[in-house]
Amino acid sequence: MTVARSVNPRTGAEFGPDFPDADTSQVAAAVAAAVEVAEVMAGLAPATIADGLLAAADALDAGSDALAALADGETALGLPRLIGEVARTTGQLRSFAVMLRTGEHLDVVATRLSAGAPARDLRRVNVPVGVVAVFAASNFPFAFSVAGGDTASALAAGCPVIVKAHYGHPQTSRRVAEILDRALPAAGLPQRAVQVLHGGADTGQALVTHPDVAAVGFTGSTAGGRAISDLAARRRVPIPVYAEQGSLNPVVVAPSALADVAAEARMLAGSVSLGGGQFCTKPGLIFVPATLSDRFVAELVDCLARTSPVHLLTEKIREQFTRAVDAATAVPGVQVWRGAAPASGFGAAPAVVSADTGTFIGAPGLREELFGPAAVVISVRDVADLRAALATVGGNLTGTVHGDPADEWVLTAVWLLTHRAGRLVYAGVPTGVAVDPAMHHGGPYPASSSARHTSVGTAAIYRFLRPVAYQDFPDELLPDALRGVGSG
Amino acid sequence: MTVARSVNPRTGAEFGPDFPDADTSQVAAAVAAAVEVAEVMAGLAPATIADGLLAAADALDAGSDALAALADGETALGLPRLIGEVARTTGQLRSFAVMLRTGEHLDVVATRLSAGAPARDLRRVNVPVGVVAVFAASNFPFAFSVAGGDTASALAAGCPVIVKAHYGHPQTSRRVAEILDRALPAAGLPQRAVQVLHGGADTGQALVTHPDVAAVGFTGSTAGGRAISDLAARRRVPIPVYAEQGSLNPVVVAPSALADVAAEARMLAGSVSLGGGQFCTKPGLIFVPATLSDRFVAELVDCLARTSPVHLLTEKIREQFTRAVDAATAVPGVQVWRGAAPASGFGAAPAVVSADTGTFIGAPGLREELFGPAAVVISVRDVADLRAALATVGGNLTGTVHGDPADEWVLTAVWLLTHRAGRLVYAGVPTGVAVDPAMHHGGPYPASSSARHTSVGTAAIYRFLRPVAYQDFPDELLPDALRGVGSG
Repeated sequence: MTVARSVNPRTGAEFGPDFPDADTSQVAAAVAAAVEVAEVMAGLAPATIADGLLAAADALDAGSDALAALADGETALGLPRLIGEVARTTGQLRSFAVMLRTGEHLDVVATRLSAGAPARDLRRVNVPVGVVAVFAASNFPFAFSVAGGDTASALAAGCPVIVKAHYGHPQTSRRVAEILDRALPAAGLPQRAVQVLHGGADTGQALVTHPDVAAVGFTGSTAGGRAISDLAARRRVPIPVYAEQGSLNPVVVAPSALADVAAEARMLAGSVSLGGGQFCTKPGLIFVPATLSDRFVAELVDCLARTSPVHLLTEKIREQFTRAVDAATAVPGVQVWRGAAPASGFGAAPAVVSADTGTFIGAPGLREELFGPAAVVISVRDVADLRAALATVGGNLTGTVHGDPADEWVLTAVWLLTHRAGRLVYAGVPTGVAVDPAMHHGGPYPASSSARHTSVGTAAIYRFLRPVAYQDFPDELLPDALRGVGSG
Repeated sequence: MTVARSVNPRTGAEFGPDFPDADTSQVAAAVAAAVEVAEVMAGLAPATIADGLLAAADALDAGSDALAALADGETALGLPRLIGEVARTTGQLRSFAVMLRTGEHLDVVATRLSAGAPARDLRRVNVPVGVVAVFAASNFPFAFSVAGGDTASALAAGCPVIVKAHYGHPQTSRRVAEILDRALPAAGLPQRAVQVLHGGADTGQALVTHPDVAAVGFTGSTAGGRAISDLAARRRVPIPVYAEQGSLNPVVVAPSALADVAAEARMLAGSVSLGGGQFCTKPGLIFVPATLSDRFVAELVDCLARTSPVHLLTEKIREQFTRAVDAATAVPGVQVWRGAAPASGFGAAPAVVSADTGTFIGAPGLREELFGPAAVVISVRDVADLRAALATVGGNLTGTVHGDPADEWVLTAVWLLTHRAGRLVYAGVPTGVAVDPAMHHGGPYPASSSARHTSVGTAAIYRFLRPVAYQDFPDELLPDALRGVGSG
């Protein structure tokens, strides 16, 4: 790909201007500008950065309807969802502004050491890591794109950002960049605090391997995140990559949760089909008791057959989804239902794949993410069977448990899923990620490249800060946050 | 290497029993045992783990004199230093016990979400990451070895530990392991919470690539740390490596610090030669004003010539040190002084390499760590010259600044070193690392593999914990620390 254009997923028709790929020299120019911005931002008060985040939020909110309409043309995600996503995005920006005013993110610790220690005092504070590269997601044109969570948390940390826009929504990305370009400097941030590049794998590679890039945020597939992590690990100076990748989001439905099989299937079908099944938290793997699994599958199929027609975000996502369902269908011992696909554009057929645990355990292909409106349902005989099946499941963003707290299935599932997921959901559905300080949106590999870090919620800022300890320093040489602290 | 034995650095003579390398099946057996221990430890109350840490500290203190004597025979570091190091090690164990009783390490956050949010409540807590592999250091037979900071922080996090002992002190490592084997289970921890393996690169590789190892702590050379990081990054499931590696620890001596050149040289010579120059925080690179550099070098040489004879820890370290000083000597434009080396054992000659900034900037070899009693002194004309020289320096554990706070050299050095070091020292010396919550012992690459993490101080525990968020969970299914919290 050397030039991208917008494509309407509902029709497959291209529209709008050309977006040429940024080449190596354009990447180098962006990084050089960002290095200068980093020097300026490292000296800014957190309150100034907070003003910038608030100004960006206000400007995006003011353009919400137009932004959502533009994004709907490029993503087919629908206006209500997209208007809500703009609000989530501006809510994120504002939550970091609130955090910055508390100073909490600086994690200041100060100690007067006792006599005999190798120093008199130590004072520690967090400083920004430097230039951050952000790889935007296909499935969230606002909340995980140009002004999304990675950008908001890096800016809040005091780091300039270079975003590689996703080719699935280039016009939306450019429009958001224009809004930031006006709002941030007006609030006192330097010009080019956020820069946006368009391009494919070559552009991404130039960015990740540039010596002056200090950290990477990524939202996308496991294969994409791994490729970027591998590039970063092979640099002369390796850098951290915070990649939010693929996830199966297992759901364990205990016998005690199936008093009403139809209601259970309806709840999960709603979560499976939300946003065309293109959520990183989509429940893609559902364990149900064997005695009721046929009925559950029939109800799930019935619900999915009645959902609105789905157009996936891009041609590539549609192809990958179709290929993944084909691959699951080819596994001996599985049953597959496939619904009807809209004939136009990137229409996709919903699907339900079902199998028993023996088949599941023997077929690694059933543990691959199906990014689209599909789920794998596994019929489970008993708790030992559940344990054996869950033992084959790797890291996930979420794990969900339905059933009475005293149900042995529930106790077993909670224990095993705690070791395999970053967020556990009880009784509800995993789609719908609250932006909150208590949120953890991450999880053991392959769900994320760093299980210790979240990409949603204010704790996401810590990915882009590092501690510096000052030993026996006079106040006048210290960063503002450490002056007069603990030196009494 | 297939069998290691203790070697007396003062004589070069081998002594004591054979320590055969652990092979792949022995590594696998240790990991399998650790996986079982991990299940048990994940269910222990922090207070129980605290009891184990205190019991270990008491038992090590009780054996302090004998341990120091054993280690002195293997390392020639001297009894006073080694008795002090045992005390530092037990102090570390106790500091984690104190932390565990506060619950602070769990970083509990709980939120009642507002109406309209995707959930009713979120509660987050840290959980242990699983089995931790620790690579012990040559230069700290206690504080960075079997019961050292990596082990203490991993145990405190609730993780079983497999230590690869350093071949430089196998008997000391075995003795410490025996003490832990008795003390930890007596306090309520499972058997084999800490296991010790002996061996070389093959043993290390088997450990780092084992699928059930979840994280690695390492203290040693940049080359060693990088090799382990590369192995870990290439795994099917990559794991984090927290490697504390090589560091130059630059010192900037401003003109205003040189009222007494002899006193300044004396202070730095003491730090350069401490422990035979075998500290990761040894000041290996000293910038001094050109007008006084000849006098400073002469005084530094004079001090180093009068320090006690040095026997380095191992034959390999002596060879590497000699080769590194030879390489610096071969750089055109440098002056080199080399003192006398003891003829016996692993005796090493102290050395001072000096050059101007032009020579320094053009010779990357002068920015390689000299692990032993040597330093590179760079004569600097002015602030612009200082800036150009510091710009070529990579990541460091520490940066030190001597001079008046208003001195332009000092202001420039503080700014540039903040971006290149994890700890800044004013007026003092970088050797001597206080074990304290405000400490940061880490730094940008190559000083450590993860600039965000410390290997000294209680914050080291966070390397071995990861967050899990629980959404809408009933109290009875939550970990103890989250019951009744924020669900009101």
